[in-house]
Amino acid sequence: FFSICHLMPLTLYYYAIEGGRVGCIRAALLHAGVEFEDKMLNFQEYSQMKAAGTAPAGMPCLEIDGKQMTQSLAISRFVGKKSDLYPKDDVQALVVDEVMDIVQDVLTKCPQDPDAEVKKKKREEYAAGKMKDFFDQISKRMTEVPGPFLLGAKPSIADMQVFYLLDMLRMGFFDHVEPTYPDAWQPLVAHEKAMAESEVIKKYREYFASKKP
Amino acid sequence: FFSICHLMPLTLYYYAIEGGRVGCIRAALLHAGVEFEDKMLNFQEYSQMKAAGTAPAGMPCLEIDGKQMTQSLAISRFVGKKSDLYPKDDVQALVVDEVMDIVQDVLTKCPQDPDAEVKKKKREEYAAGKMKDFFDQISKRMTEVPGPFLLGAKPSIADMQVFYLLDMLRMGFFDHVEPTYPDAWQPLVAHEKAMAESEVIKKYREYFASKKP
Repeated sequence: FFSICHLMPLTLYYYAIEGGRVGCIRAALLHAGVEFEDKMLNFQEYSQMKAAGTAPAGMPCLEIDGKQMTQSLAISRFVGKKSDLYPKDDVQALVVDEVMDIVQDVLTKCPQDPDAEVKKKKREEYAAGKMKDFFDQISKRMTEVPGPFLLGAKPSIADMQVFYLLDMLRMGFFDHVEPTYPDAWQPLVAHEKAMAESEVIKKYREYFASKKP
Repeated sequence: FFSICHLMPLTLYYYAIEGGRVGCIRAALLHAGVEFEDKMLNFQEYSQMKAAGTAPAGMPCLEIDGKQMTQSLAISRFVGKKSDLYPKDDVQALVVDEVMDIVQDVLTKCPQDPDAEVKKKKREEYAAGKMKDFFDQISKRMTEVPGPFLLGAKPSIADMQVFYLLDMLRMGFFDHVEPTYPDAWQPLVAHEKAMAESEVIKKYREYFASKKP
């Protein structure tokens, strides 16, 4: 990867936030020890780029040697391969990919509604229904091999996606879903603690604290 | 892969339809020349499995040696790796993964509404707005290297996802979006034709016609 990165300048574009859809990507880039330009935009800067027609087609965006690539999971997998956070074994990779797609489902299937009351009702139904099923699935996978991580002793990009999903919940990102929602799954709470204490997350948090505008 | 498959019995669970979220998976399994049990369920059988608690957590589901894996993109990538339909080069794999995630976005971000008129309005806005942006992105990627496929002369699982997305549109799967919608993108129409004539799709269509209940 070092050779690629000396040949290919890397620029990451996203809002100046730690977690959400960018956390896994920035943390993996740091874990790889690779140099990259970290364009942390605020909403005003992004609006200006949009107006000027210079905004990426989607964010997060990883620009590789001038080519702008979008989609947080695709980018996470790319940087995961380069930072030893994505397994070479195909069945293990399937487990990682499945969990990442379930996390994505939790986010994309979360209902919206312009009517505040309807939104509240839909969100509560989601938290008690489909979202609970997704959490059951993730939690079950976390217990299939000895932990603390999905595949065992080493974290993967799937662990990072799960970690930042829980982080979003803890921060109240999901209106009408309690920040304590994950506490019903003991394996996920144990996982959250192990991730917070992992080198990859600690290193990223130090970096983010130092870079935050 | 043959050795894996002799060790690990494979069973695929999905509805008895050709395309949608299962087309890429079945076609890639056939392309790999691997034996698998193809459980084509009808809605009644699936309901009975649900009631009996024996339904997979999600469908499509690939059961590998008794372990049930869900998520259509994760499974597509797994069978793609086994059938030479997923690139070994990491930058090419990023291009494939990005396009697959954009196709997934087209499907998951398509608005729903219980009110027929509101749904129509939302769908029309989507087709003219966000969905158009997604199609622009996919079409642009299709022209970045000489075709007819995303990465050149050989199709990948991303080409198959795009093909079955267009197939869903052609079949009128998207209420209030015209079946002629893709015709506005000449590279996508050319791609559709090349895919329909490819060995991987032709072989799958013959198989499906022979197996269809």
